[in-house]
Amino acid sequence: MLLYDFPESGNCFKVRLLFAHLGIEYDKQFVDPFDFGAKKELLGDLNPVRRVPTLVLDDGRPLAESNAILTSFAEGTAYLPEDRYARAQVFQWLFFEQFSHQPPMAITRVWGRAQLDIPAEQRAEQLKLGNNALRALDRHLDGREFIVDDTYSIADIALYAYTHVAHEGGHDLAPYANVRSWLARVAAQARHVAIDARPSA
Amino acid sequence: MLLYDFPESGNCFKVRLLFAHLGIEYDKQFVDPFDFGAKKELLGDLNPVRRVPTLVLDDGRPLAESNAILTSFAEGTAYLPEDRYARAQVFQWLFFEQFSHQPPMAITRVWGRAQLDIPAEQRAEQLKLGNNALRALDRHLDGREFIVDDTYSIADIALYAYTHVAHEGGHDLAPYANVRSWLARVAAQARHVAIDARPSA
Repeated sequence: MLLYDFPESGNCFKVRLLFAHLGIEYDKQFVDPFDFGAKKELLGDLNPVRRVPTLVLDDGRPLAESNAILTSFAEGTAYLPEDRYARAQVFQWLFFEQFSHQPPMAITRVWGRAQLDIPAEQRAEQLKLGNNALRALDRHLDGREFIVDDTYSIADIALYAYTHVAHEGGHDLAPYANVRSWLARVAAQARHVAIDARPSA
Repeated sequence: MLLYDFPESGNCFKVRLLFAHLGIEYDKQFVDPFDFGAKKELLGDLNPVRRVPTLVLDDGRPLAESNAILTSFAEGTAYLPEDRYARAQVFQWLFFEQFSHQPPMAITRVWGRAQLDIPAEQRAEQLKLGNNALRALDRHLDGREFIVDDTYSIADIALYAYTHVAHEGGHDLAPYANVRSWLARVAAQARHVAIDARPSA
């Protein structure tokens, strides 16, 4: 398989992390998400929104959206539970991640890493949204080892991706003790890999 | 089951539409998403982000995120395919919907229905994002009856919800002929129901 990948991207990292856990081998093709020409050339026929990650399966068919890739490869493994309610909870948190969590965490991180001069009001608005998501996650993790049924799953992988680098966007995790101990538990999982991003600034 | 519901909400409508197709009966509790006190009181213990739709199952356990509810109830029915690649494609479009499509479509619709005086630049930015999503959907639907494998699925239900009312947010569907004919095919499905929103302006 071929993963169109950007090392810094939390969404790409999710796929690399699950594949590391599962021992899945694949090739990588670097795509700069800020180079629109390269994205059109490389991803134009593979992904309707020309984003990374985009995966080309062994049979040549493409698959996009990080959480859809996680879902497809976790099926039948310990990373996606079989119990109907547990599965539904995993999906609840995957959609929470893409709707409420990833957008403010990713945009503040891009601003932070590139040292962009963003108006204070705009930055404050995104930090507020990010903190709303972190607070919801922290409340949920109170008394829980992992997000669903105290078992490490793709819900943890998806939410770890942008949470563990939240400081790069100016988010302070100090108030979120449950999140911080959960991050440590995720990082301690067997075959964990680091995001290993290139410096961008 | 009890659905915490706001009639105007496209996300709530998705659930009502799938339940209508499946003949699932349930009770509804009205929640005004703009009333933060009511949301805290009604949804505080049920949904980490206190949004509608929130569903309480027969056994009292809660489930949130519209597309997670669709996924859970479509499992084992014709609305979620069994084939691994087809399923992955359904999930790809469900995540596309929540990340790329729903946010600009929903915010412009709220502005339009409430006749809010939004700065032109801010409105233009959201309309551009909405049109990017509509263009991606229109390209994908070229030569296709439905979004995945020419078979009506929860991917169609999810994307229909905000697309068929896009004009309420100032989106013009005239350039998107594939989208328009697909909307008609969705509305022609057996046991289709209308969003039936109350007037808000």
